[in-house]
Amino acid sequence: MTELIERLKSIVGTRGWTADPQELGPHLVDWRGVYEGSTPIMVSPASTGEVAAVVRACHAAGASIVPQGGNTGMCGGAVPDTSGDQVVVSLARMNRVCNVDADNFSIEVEAGCTLESVQRIARQAHRFFPLSLSAEGTCQIGGNIATNAGGINVGRYGTARALVMGLEVVLADGTILDTQRALRKDTAGYDIKQLFIGSEGTLGIITAATLRLFPEPGPMTTALLALETAATAVAVLANLKTRLHDRVESFELFSNRVAEIVEQHIPDVSLPFGERHPWYVLMDAAIGDDQELLNDVLMRQVETQQVLDVVIAKNAGEADRLWRLRHSVAEAERKEGRALKHDVSVPLSRMGEFLERGDALLASLRPDLQLIAFGHVGDGNLHYNVVLPRDLPEDEWMAEGERITVALYDLVNELGGSFSAEHGVGQAKKVYLRRYRGGAEFELMKLLKKGLDPANTLNPGKIF
Amino acid sequence: MTELIERLKSIVGTRGWTADPQELGPHLVDWRGVYEGSTPIMVSPASTGEVAAVVRACHAAGASIVPQGGNTGMCGGAVPDTSGDQVVVSLARMNRVCNVDADNFSIEVEAGCTLESVQRIARQAHRFFPLSLSAEGTCQIGGNIATNAGGINVGRYGTARALVMGLEVVLADGTILDTQRALRKDTAGYDIKQLFIGSEGTLGIITAATLRLFPEPGPMTTALLALETAATAVAVLANLKTRLHDRVESFELFSNRVAEIVEQHIPDVSLPFGERHPWYVLMDAAIGDDQELLNDVLMRQVETQQVLDVVIAKNAGEADRLWRLRHSVAEAERKEGRALKHDVSVPLSRMGEFLERGDALLASLRPDLQLIAFGHVGDGNLHYNVVLPRDLPEDEWMAEGERITVALYDLVNELGGSFSAEHGVGQAKKVYLRRYRGGAEFELMKLLKKGLDPANTLNPGKIF
Repeated sequence: MTELIERLKSIVGTRGWTADPQELGPHLVDWRGVYEGSTPIMVSPASTGEVAAVVRACHAAGASIVPQGGNTGMCGGAVPDTSGDQVVVSLARMNRVCNVDADNFSIEVEAGCTLESVQRIARQAHRFFPLSLSAEGTCQIGGNIATNAGGINVGRYGTARALVMGLEVVLADGTILDTQRALRKDTAGYDIKQLFIGSEGTLGIITAATLRLFPEPGPMTTALLALETAATAVAVLANLKTRLHDRVESFELFSNRVAEIVEQHIPDVSLPFGERHPWYVLMDAAIGDDQELLNDVLMRQVETQQVLDVVIAKNAGEADRLWRLRHSVAEAERKEGRALKHDVSVPLSRMGEFLERGDALLASLRPDLQLIAFGHVGDGNLHYNVVLPRDLPEDEWMAEGERITVALYDLVNELGGSFSAEHGVGQAKKVYLRRYRGGAEFELMKLLKKGLDPANTLNPGKIF
Repeated sequence: MTELIERLKSIVGTRGWTADPQELGPHLVDWRGVYEGSTPIMVSPASTGEVAAVVRACHAAGASIVPQGGNTGMCGGAVPDTSGDQVVVSLARMNRVCNVDADNFSIEVEAGCTLESVQRIARQAHRFFPLSLSAEGTCQIGGNIATNAGGINVGRYGTARALVMGLEVVLADGTILDTQRALRKDTAGYDIKQLFIGSEGTLGIITAATLRLFPEPGPMTTALLALETAATAVAVLANLKTRLHDRVESFELFSNRVAEIVEQHIPDVSLPFGERHPWYVLMDAAIGDDQELLNDVLMRQVETQQVLDVVIAKNAGEADRLWRLRHSVAEAERKEGRALKHDVSVPLSRMGEFLERGDALLASLRPDLQLIAFGHVGDGNLHYNVVLPRDLPEDEWMAEGERITVALYDLVNELGGSFSAEHGVGQAKKVYLRRYRGGAEFELMKLLKKGLDPANTLNPGKIF
């Protein structure tokens, strides 16, 4: 190991590595604070060539690598294990924007660019990069692609996968794979880059990407709707998508309980309605000057009582105030205390059924559970978090948590859904991957891992 | 072989096979009439179970399989070789629509459904399936997915890949892989279905698919623009996409020479302009009642001479007449005679440069070449077809064709493009795949083929 470490230091130079415990600290524990590991060294290569040399050196020495972007993942996929043997490779120094091609609606960036910087640079070229999620100021685009990140604009623009035109990847033996073609159509053989999107650093290290840009969506209209049931949200969305011709950019559902927690923990945030309702939807529509149309559609839905009440933001300030409600959910939830987190998806048409049956299931499991549910109805993704009584002893909390989670995932699975909508597998969900994706699908995953990384150099202990 | 044939007959039953030369005929030659092969038997399984049993039997007997959909491919990917040993598996009898889920904007169909039937059934549910191409009445959705088909709506909706939510696939050893989840977000391990999209039947046989639907785009406005250069088309498109907020549904470029050929060979089709111009663009915009906006944008471009002339269809009849021009190109081209076909893509921003340098290149290769260029500017895809003098002897035609094709592909490659935008590789482009996708990318393709189909049971001689 000592020899390897010296080799790595010489590859990346004095500014490219650290073994200082204080500097290493934030890179060894995941964002949720659940997984903590150790490493002999973290290297931060400055170029693809350096990444390749680092991988070759580790591969030759039989050492394993944990690639790390912004380390904002929710499943412990980017932190080393406790062995102390895994080399952390940070992409943070590779944060150059290589090319903004406005005419081609594309941008070429290194993996270490933050998501926010990609959005900003696109905007400066009067283009729009739609991927958007809470961690965007910190997360890196390489990590977004490696986890096939979702976020709030998926219903309209797809996940990270749909935004990738080309990738540069360092393979497990240090070979550099270059598929950086800024093309919308390319049927020249297998689309190899797809392998690495969503592979959580287990098949290759993404070092650069060419991404799709879109026209700026233009003026956005924000509205908050109050609803009786979550199933109504699905029907209202279908109606709006049709009437507004797919110009619904986001459609975020949250329960009254979520609103209460936000109002309780976050200053100066409150619902604009006179009375409480069971569910709310916060939506953006890119309808330009067609506000009248949105108004008409929503008012008709109020008349038919599909929608109980509605507030349409009159200006950007009002829109910001409404969005503050939604953007504060994660922080409020953290302040509220520990919860069992479930990042699930179901077909939109089953969402009402899932929430109804979920309620009954929770009640049958324990009478003292509290549900905090919010999510992206536009793409069937719900963050279905369950709060257990605070006074449970730790071992009981863990056992009960496991029992509740499995029961919920079984329900999700029965409804054709996924136990991991946008947070990946990492370390946290390995056991569920085997449970719900067994058989031929899991065998093919293992075949890919063995074929592309026979020595298990890249991010071992994640996904599998 | 005799034993295998008896086994296959017993699996699919009397209605499920043919060895009659007349019935087999159209299944043994490709659409362009370039590749013709033979087979001992064509089986048409009626269910996924039957497909699996057929594959198991062939795999056990060491026989190889050619999966076939509508057999409308342009590169000979769906016809058997001349050995007479390859079993053809037609998906034509598996043409059931399993589920139309309007609320989830999804549809589940068997592989043998024609593309047109998928479009129609979506429309009946007030939804829109955007994949659209000339062969849609005959081609099958399984083949569209196996070739990652493109067509005229890719700029707005993506290729077939972007429309696939789940697949059912029979693997090379007869194992059935089921990833039929109707989800927009799913990060539970590797996205295995991606392997089979665009693999041209060499990694598995697609038996069913779950597809994304969209809201109906609403009333479409059709316009024909006249332009001085193809580069202008790219600039005009960027402007329109921005001003119309991404509601440009198609944007088809063709040269004056293409228009001439259409007018010459197709009755009752003509350009609506008083004079000829070098290039034309036919476009659809889903702008509903915003026709004024399109009018304004186009008129400003006429004033600034970006656009030389413009006709906006006043009603559906006029729109149909304009589209007849574009839809007749393939037929007119066939009547015009044999041509060297090049289905290429380049970044939109390089399209002007490609056409300019392409002109110079053709002139330098031979003074007597004629260019027939048309394509989908929205996604950088050009059908760049070259007519050689009719009186060339066959061997000279072939040699000259090869020389011209390689020179053009070299130029495409230099500009970051692809020698195969939407027609795949099949038998026709194998040599170019090695030339332009060599190195790590090609090695990974071979690794996948070997890993998933070690006995080379599925569609051998295609892609590789």
